[in-house]
Amino acid sequence: MFASHFSAHNIPFGIASSEGHPRRSAATRLENTVIYLDELAKHDLLSSLPKEALDAFSHVDLNGFAALPKSIHQQTRAALQSLFKEPLASLPAGCTDKLNNVTMHLPVSSRDFTDFSCSKDHVLNAGEAIQKKRYLPPGFLHFPIGYSGRTCSLIVSGTSFVRPKGQFRDAQGSIVYGPTKQLDYELELACIIGKPTKLGETVASKHADDHIFGYVLMNDWSARDIQGLEMPPLGPLNGKSFATSLSPWIITLDALQASAVEGQPRELQVASYLMDSNPINSYDIALQADLITGGKSTIICKSNLNAMYWTFRDLVVHQSSNGCCLNTGDILATGTISGSTDDSHGCLLELTNGGQYSFELSDGQSRIYIEDGDEIQISALASDGVGFGECTGKVLPADL
Amino acid sequence: MFASHFSAHNIPFGIASSEGHPRRSAATRLENTVIYLDELAKHDLLSSLPKEALDAFSHVDLNGFAALPKSIHQQTRAALQSLFKEPLASLPAGCTDKLNNVTMHLPVSSRDFTDFSCSKDHVLNAGEAIQKKRYLPPGFLHFPIGYSGRTCSLIVSGTSFVRPKGQFRDAQGSIVYGPTKQLDYELELACIIGKPTKLGETVASKHADDHIFGYVLMNDWSARDIQGLEMPPLGPLNGKSFATSLSPWIITLDALQASAVEGQPRELQVASYLMDSNPINSYDIALQADLITGGKSTIICKSNLNAMYWTFRDLVVHQSSNGCCLNTGDILATGTISGSTDDSHGCLLELTNGGQYSFELSDGQSRIYIEDGDEIQISALASDGVGFGECTGKVLPADL
Repeated sequence: MFASHFSAHNIPFGIASSEGHPRRSAATRLENTVIYLDELAKHDLLSSLPKEALDAFSHVDLNGFAALPKSIHQQTRAALQSLFKEPLASLPAGCTDKLNNVTMHLPVSSRDFTDFSCSKDHVLNAGEAIQKKRYLPPGFLHFPIGYSGRTCSLIVSGTSFVRPKGQFRDAQGSIVYGPTKQLDYELELACIIGKPTKLGETVASKHADDHIFGYVLMNDWSARDIQGLEMPPLGPLNGKSFATSLSPWIITLDALQASAVEGQPRELQVASYLMDSNPINSYDIALQADLITGGKSTIICKSNLNAMYWTFRDLVVHQSSNGCCLNTGDILATGTISGSTDDSHGCLLELTNGGQYSFELSDGQSRIYIEDGDEIQISALASDGVGFGECTGKVLPADL
Repeated sequence: MFASHFSAHNIPFGIASSEGHPRRSAATRLENTVIYLDELAKHDLLSSLPKEALDAFSHVDLNGFAALPKSIHQQTRAALQSLFKEPLASLPAGCTDKLNNVTMHLPVSSRDFTDFSCSKDHVLNAGEAIQKKRYLPPGFLHFPIGYSGRTCSLIVSGTSFVRPKGQFRDAQGSIVYGPTKQLDYELELACIIGKPTKLGETVASKHADDHIFGYVLMNDWSARDIQGLEMPPLGPLNGKSFATSLSPWIITLDALQASAVEGQPRELQVASYLMDSNPINSYDIALQADLITGGKSTIICKSNLNAMYWTFRDLVVHQSSNGCCLNTGDILATGTISGSTDDSHGCLLELTNGGQYSFELSDGQSRIYIEDGDEIQISALASDGVGFGECTGKVLPADL
């Protein structure tokens, strides 16, 4: 699946294991082949790289590698691209595995995770769905608003989870306790922090990219009914913290460079610390969400990262603007990536206008929110052909 | 300071180092003496304890020890109490240090941190201060509301921090960027998770205490102006994530058992998962906050944990009720602990009614919010005489 996303222009980084390679280690992917970086290092096939990179390839997460200078990431990319000019079959036994034989793991160990709200369309549509009015929160045009998520809820693509229980208002407005009746997905991208900062340090916009190791897909599963009751005034907690899916392959800034574009214009002048003198501050990345049930797939959203009002550089700058530190492996996510059209709603809250309308699946069934057994697959492809593969998750019935 | 809090009835756990004991390790405290548990283990003075406990004493955080069964924590407590029947001077050289010579560190490594809102008085007073109306959020009487905090902002007592910058409304209502003008403290207690749970697992009320390793003081420093602008609708982020102080000594449930009391009655029947069949669900713990400036101290709050509407057991149960996991070292905090009287406001937002009134310091100065150079000290003492010592932090001028 998605083999074409992973040409030699991509060179993503992930953590993989298999029966033949039982210990988790750093890996990359070329089409449908996974290549273990620790094995390449053992066979002296990456001898141009510094020892700290080679050592980091045998860690169980990418944090050690991600924290190294960006120049080492670039050297690694170049060394792998050079190696892949020869057929993979010429690599020593044990260096590669077919994707189907491999288990992918969370690529990094994350200590903190912020989910921002970068999409103006999402915020306006969500306001209409919930409060019957299209409006922006008071801070929205001034800085990226966001909330801290719970890192223990992070799961890797392909992991199923149980429908969460909680308290919410039923149709009559009474507060009841039970399995959520409004399970939703959120189509997102997230950046993973490489170079860390210290508490008290701020990051200037021109240095923000230096702190980003790369990007992954994220599905911020949401129980809208639980979330709706708990949000005022402290924001979401149990409506989100039961599962958050990440794609396993981290796509680097270098891989996406050819797809970099100008982001959306500012509607208000922003504070000095958020001024970005480099207008090429976004990426042309097409995103898609599919609902899969009974083996049949239905496209439920097509949108683009470039519709976002706030950029990843803005997120890094704003998060650190109060002296908050960034640790390697930290995750800063976009929030739901919606566009302005009816087919670009990045969550069901928007698509069904708060549960008012149902939508049809390709097999003739209909849905308002996600039902037990449904699987959501999100995927992303940059304009230059570099892709993220997929991020999937299936909902299991609640424990009763 | 606070030597009387640390009699042999206490036996707290912390992480300490000193010139003579440069590597951080587990420690306990008796009055003003710090006793290194790894040294006691080396000298075979804790030979009744299992090897996994002895090994954990040389870790740089208490996570390994905290994750062990509660029976091992109790054995450790008993072994130390037995050892302390003899004068400390009889212990081998290197086992003890005077408190003044010791550097205390964060006691645990924390992956997730939730700050709840357990005090009805705080919520009513904060509503009055900010919105000129006393009201409870819709969920408040149904479950403990809360938000995820950022673990990278956790600092140990005694650590100074720089006044944070951010965007907020000035007196004319314009949104400006600069150092916060409304720096506040929040008097809190927090529990530290010992026994972890897995994603998808829930915790029954009768088992909640099994997951709590112990308690610490917390000062959830808050920039009210930054927080006020960013909160709608996703909750606090940069108004909180610049610094959160923790006291270094973890006080166990066993140490507090003699101070356990009945908590506040429920005003509404709660959902089944929050029903606690054990009415002894809170502690009689007196808390105090002092503002120290120019060497002079002023008491600014006296309150009690037992005024809280929600208990620590409720926090553990609610956090896990959606299947959210708890990891060893995770922190679940009470939010501001305020009482119903004018001298029991656990933050300046309440004390000054949103900045409307100033208050006098013992040296004749006045304050509305915290000024550069001010130090806040919070402390807590349970009715049976077991105490938490202090949690302090000083504010340095903003970087300009």
